[in-house]
Amino acid sequence: MPTSRADAVTADERSPLRGRRDLFDLPDGVVYLDGNSLGALPRSVPDRVRRVVAQEWGVGLISSWNSAGWVDLARRVGDRIAPLVGAAPGDVHVGDSTSVTLFKTLVAACRLRPDRRVLVVEPTTFPTDAYVASGVARLLGLELRWCDPADPAAVLDEDVAVLSLTHVDFRTGAMYDLAGLTAAAHGVGALVQWDLCHSTGAVPVDLTAADADAAVGCTYKYLNGGPGSPAFAWVHPRHHGAWDQPVTGWFGHAHPFEMDREFTPADGITRMASGTPPVLALSALDSALDAFDGVGMPALREASLSLSDLFLALVDERLGSAVEVVTPREHARRGSQVSLRHPDAYGVVQALVARGVVGDFRTPDVARFGFAPLYVTHTDVHDAVDHLAAVLGGEEHRRPEYAVRNAVT
Amino acid sequence: MPTSRADAVTADERSPLRGRRDLFDLPDGVVYLDGNSLGALPRSVPDRVRRVVAQEWGVGLISSWNSAGWVDLARRVGDRIAPLVGAAPGDVHVGDSTSVTLFKTLVAACRLRPDRRVLVVEPTTFPTDAYVASGVARLLGLELRWCDPADPAAVLDEDVAVLSLTHVDFRTGAMYDLAGLTAAAHGVGALVQWDLCHSTGAVPVDLTAADADAAVGCTYKYLNGGPGSPAFAWVHPRHHGAWDQPVTGWFGHAHPFEMDREFTPADGITRMASGTPPVLALSALDSALDAFDGVGMPALREASLSLSDLFLALVDERLGSAVEVVTPREHARRGSQVSLRHPDAYGVVQALVARGVVGDFRTPDVARFGFAPLYVTHTDVHDAVDHLAAVLGGEEHRRPEYAVRNAVT
Repeated sequence: MPTSRADAVTADERSPLRGRRDLFDLPDGVVYLDGNSLGALPRSVPDRVRRVVAQEWGVGLISSWNSAGWVDLARRVGDRIAPLVGAAPGDVHVGDSTSVTLFKTLVAACRLRPDRRVLVVEPTTFPTDAYVASGVARLLGLELRWCDPADPAAVLDEDVAVLSLTHVDFRTGAMYDLAGLTAAAHGVGALVQWDLCHSTGAVPVDLTAADADAAVGCTYKYLNGGPGSPAFAWVHPRHHGAWDQPVTGWFGHAHPFEMDREFTPADGITRMASGTPPVLALSALDSALDAFDGVGMPALREASLSLSDLFLALVDERLGSAVEVVTPREHARRGSQVSLRHPDAYGVVQALVARGVVGDFRTPDVARFGFAPLYVTHTDVHDAVDHLAAVLGGEEHRRPEYAVRNAVT
Repeated sequence: MPTSRADAVTADERSPLRGRRDLFDLPDGVVYLDGNSLGALPRSVPDRVRRVVAQEWGVGLISSWNSAGWVDLARRVGDRIAPLVGAAPGDVHVGDSTSVTLFKTLVAACRLRPDRRVLVVEPTTFPTDAYVASGVARLLGLELRWCDPADPAAVLDEDVAVLSLTHVDFRTGAMYDLAGLTAAAHGVGALVQWDLCHSTGAVPVDLTAADADAAVGCTYKYLNGGPGSPAFAWVHPRHHGAWDQPVTGWFGHAHPFEMDREFTPADGITRMASGTPPVLALSALDSALDAFDGVGMPALREASLSLSDLFLALVDERLGSAVEVVTPREHARRGSQVSLRHPDAYGVVQALVARGVVGDFRTPDVARFGFAPLYVTHTDVHDAVDHLAAVLGGEEHRRPEYAVRNAVT
């Protein structure tokens, strides 16, 4: 594959996403390859947030629940996420943190299989998924069973209520076969909950075609919703009627403003709601999703793979065996990031940050580079590997101050 | 008590909170008596939010988790709420919605009394409290027992694990004896969870002096955190070690960034955390709390009672028996609102809104007027009752368009 800087410039000029980067406000001189941790700021967001604060809150005050549409903002935002994950409009809820949303969907999914006593989790998943699953297992009196990351279906049997899997691994960028593993679970009568945190907005997901049961995803990575923006949840419509999530708050009630004493769950995905929706965060997210308007998932995937292919080719060409590529090379098994193993990975990441190339470190020895296709360019990728080669060719990554680690996903 | 408009002007000039209203951005011509539903916009907030979005997110990007202190923002905000509720610094967590926070604390509180099978709830409480409690009871296999609102202690016995009470009633504004009811529950070995949604920031609360067990409160009413801002939770330090909340997410882990497979709860109140903190909302709330700097709770309470006393005196003087006052007149039993019963309460509230006086309606027949002492003035109160008398003296509240109801707390 052509790997010169001129080739990268040409690839950017020919990209189906050419011009989308202008929708983001990235600092000059920064190559941002950490959008799979915190997405960049879409240019539309500051003005929208300013308006929500100054006008809707400051002037509209309480009346904005109706006049500014706060009361169904969560549903409208869900409707914009739906096409990115193969969901129908009206079937995606947005509101709580990813951990809380995982908890609610996992309890509800396990309740759909009351005669089964096993919850299966993949041990290299993002930690909060395993922590939440262990909390749910303890709460419901289930056995927590770890599967083999290389073959999650191997431990499935008729005792399994739910298989909880992350579609794209946060550390390695490896992607599971969503439809195939869903079918395997259904084959033994189990349900599957998918965590789409590292998929949504960068990798094709078709929950309906895969006949999945439930899914959760965060919105501050490839969806660019801002730090700590709320997570989304999807539940297959066949489960809506029996879906019984445990945090039965007033916004999940069929008639929240009637102030009934008894809880009657709302129809459909609205029963996933609990408390008052986080209006500021939902508004920022709503505005951020504008950057996806008019972009099809095939174009996003094509751009993402073109970027990671170029990164891999340049790493092979320039670094050889100095690093180990831990992300699968097959397209079908690759998310939208490339992870490199190096004994001084933390120092490597810090030295790159000092040069304006922002990736991130994942304990114990992984340097992770995410390719958010809306704003990362082939030129960014070329320059990033230039800097990486320079760091590894010198001693920059071995500075004493890199002995103390700090990292947030 | 002196009730002329000139008296109101004089009372404002002599108020210990004189000048505080200038810290808020209230629209001209609006008398805002709904700050107990959604607090007004503090003038400091727009600039803080703008900076967080444009600089911390847009420029600092992922590094802001450390450089802008996002990682411990929830703790810092909790430390600012602590003195308003009689809590020690380091003992208040902020992060999830009120409903989710109620759920987490209620499950954890019930787990501290594993040999007891009854959860007591007050039936006229804000609905989400009852909904959440019923969900928790079902989840844990407990009996839900309703108490008499006039005497919640009467149903307490040695089967009761937890008594869940709201300090100030959302509809009537009646206030319970926090210390007395806590002592009554402790007398039978039960714990108490207090909902402080309608207390915090307007009514003196001393959780430590009351020897309370756990408390939850929202931050978008008297604390002015903005629409859907996150709730806080407090747990008495004697319970910290055994406190076992069910949503075990990574921010509640002792070492979140070590990415351990097993969950080890953090020490202290931090174990109440679950997911990634909502940075935008926490930043707005942090800024909003500036309006409380240098104000003691005695001054807030004095101003609040002076406002509600004036409102009651004017209602008696001007409206007589046209409305029924449902809020207790004794100071010790009154929160920071006055509620009036009227068969056309919805129309009354709408007619007042049309005149620029914003209160709110609570089904089926209550018009509710909140007195946020930081920005409501005696003159506001005087003008509000003028308008109320004019509405009730005519037919404004009986317009056909007021037949359809919309209301959000």
